[in-house]
Amino acid sequence: MATIFSRIIAGEIPCYKVAENDKFFAFLDINPLVKGHTLIVPKQEIDYIFDLSDEDLAAMHVFTKKVALAIQKAFPCRKVGEAVIGLEVPHAHIHLIPMQNETDMLFSNPKLKLSSEEFTAIAQAIHSSL
Amino acid sequence: MATIFSRIIAGEIPCYKVAENDKFFAFLDINPLVKGHTLIVPKQEIDYIFDLSDEDLAAMHVFTKKVALAIQKAFPCRKVGEAVIGLEVPHAHIHLIPMQNETDMLFSNPKLKLSSEEFTAIAQAIHSSL
Repeated sequence: MATIFSRIIAGEIPCYKVAENDKFFAFLDINPLVKGHTLIVPKQEIDYIFDLSDEDLAAMHVFTKKVALAIQKAFPCRKVGEAVIGLEVPHAHIHLIPMQNETDMLFSNPKLKLSSEEFTAIAQAIHSSL
Repeated sequence: MATIFSRIIAGEIPCYKVAENDKFFAFLDINPLVKGHTLIVPKQEIDYIFDLSDEDLAAMHVFTKKVALAIQKAFPCRKVGEAVIGLEVPHAHIHLIPMQNETDMLFSNPKLKLSSEEFTAIAQAIHSSL
């Protein structure tokens, strides 16, 4: 069965898309820790990020850097942090999180509740900073 | 002034080294969340990981994958997670953390207190799994 991320990439489930290329897809985390929290996923349905080939892993991180710099332009922050946890959805993904403080990366923090209009504006702001 | 990580790489401050190549260095986090918690740093003293060139960023993640697979061999786990936070030491670094549960990645968790003998044995176990 396709993962939820594959269904998002295929357009079967809506998302707030930020960027894509032939191999990777970036969209907003629907349960964000902070505004601008974005997920990067390979279009290839692979569970564990370290099962990607060296070439694809490298390309994924170059794509991730491009999106991270756009996030930082749209949402000024000290740094954009990264996390790969991946025990909940069996499709490799990198969290990008604009940080003002180290505690912004704590996944135990309560998630933001944003309206559809807010998500759309955030995705648009990052996309236009690419 | 050299960062603490540059001084570790230079051998001025001792560490429990896991691996190195011409550009990158891997050693145990001295305040580990779990056994096997490892840091990957570029030898180039750069604060923000996204200031690395595309080529070096790609190479850093290929090196990281190699170390992650060795960690997993030495310390069987569901996955090895990654985190880049980097607000405390101004020298880019990737945390590699063998996870049994998502909460193993919470940096708010208490850190393990290990003896020098335990650290040495952990570093040796990962190194020999490379």
